[in-house]
Amino acid sequence: MAFITLPTDAPGIRGPMNFRPDAAQHLLGLAETILRAPASLSQAERETIATWTSHLNGCKFCTKSHAAAARAWLGIERSADLDHLLATGDARRFGVKMEALIQICTALQSCVLGVKPEHIERARAAGASDADIHDTVLITAAFCMYNRYVEGLGTHEPAEDAYEPMGRMLKEHGYAARSAAS
Amino acid sequence: MAFITLPTDAPGIRGPMNFRPDAAQHLLGLAETILRAPASLSQAERETIATWTSHLNGCKFCTKSHAAAARAWLGIERSADLDHLLATGDARRFGVKMEALIQICTALQSCVLGVKPEHIERARAAGASDADIHDTVLITAAFCMYNRYVEGLGTHEPAEDAYEPMGRMLKEHGYAARSAAS
Repeated sequence: MAFITLPTDAPGIRGPMNFRPDAAQHLLGLAETILRAPASLSQAERETIATWTSHLNGCKFCTKSHAAAARAWLGIERSADLDHLLATGDARRFGVKMEALIQICTALQSCVLGVKPEHIERARAAGASDADIHDTVLITAAFCMYNRYVEGLGTHEPAEDAYEPMGRMLKEHGYAARSAAS
Repeated sequence: MAFITLPTDAPGIRGPMNFRPDAAQHLLGLAETILRAPASLSQAERETIATWTSHLNGCKFCTKSHAAAARAWLGIERSADLDHLLATGDARRFGVKMEALIQICTALQSCVLGVKPEHIERARAAGASDADIHDTVLITAAFCMYNRYVEGLGTHEPAEDAYEPMGRMLKEHGYAARSAAS
């Protein structure tokens, strides 16, 4: 049971979002923008950064739901690269640019002041643009929020078999549609 | 100089927000909602939670700007309570309910999994409602994002004398107006 009485028994972030819809519209709009709107990083790459941040933060709901969305974008064969990242922390299979961006993400997740000039230099040397770096920082920052919103209110996880269809739905319909459906 | 080339030399969070206005509208809308929209906690209390989170995270821009907004709401006499909190970590001058909410904030800032049932029980015993607890968690979570957005891109601080008028402007016009003016 969550720490507060939520208006629905929806698992994960949906319970708190139903509690305060005026805030939820911005939380969903931000997710839609940073994970799906046109950007230099692909949707698969952005969902991978969201998944990795959530994994480091220990938020199972966000890790599993965004891993499912990442897998929906990656396809079966490339999903093994995500499994490898989650199991080992090694992002090299995503290429040198993503490896450097994942290092920025890791530094920022653990500490607000964690990103140093050398992280940025390494990313630039690997071909990262300003937009790549900006979006990596904002996605990491945003999931340090979403993860806390889910865990800080003691919400519960859905059944294990709910994630895979959730991932497909997020790929197909995105985050705004998810709000309208709730 | 920031880690990426920003479209204006605006200090703090305004540079990154000008870089990606589609995300900024949600970041500002969220701030307006959680800090200023009708809620069980006063604006002064909510700005105090934002300030305390930013202080713990070591984000000077957010600490000073939201402390200035909190002071604008608190007035001169009660601003000493905020100074005391920032100097000592002691929130008792804000009352027992805020003391317990600040403990929730402190637990969640340091760790995504930091809020325990005993934090919630203590807050309830001190008179906190579901809305108080929800908003404390969401404000803390959101500032763990805003702080990372500011620091993860290496933005710079404005001059020291910019904060006090910024606090008054935030009290009078809020966060949406700030966007339109930028």
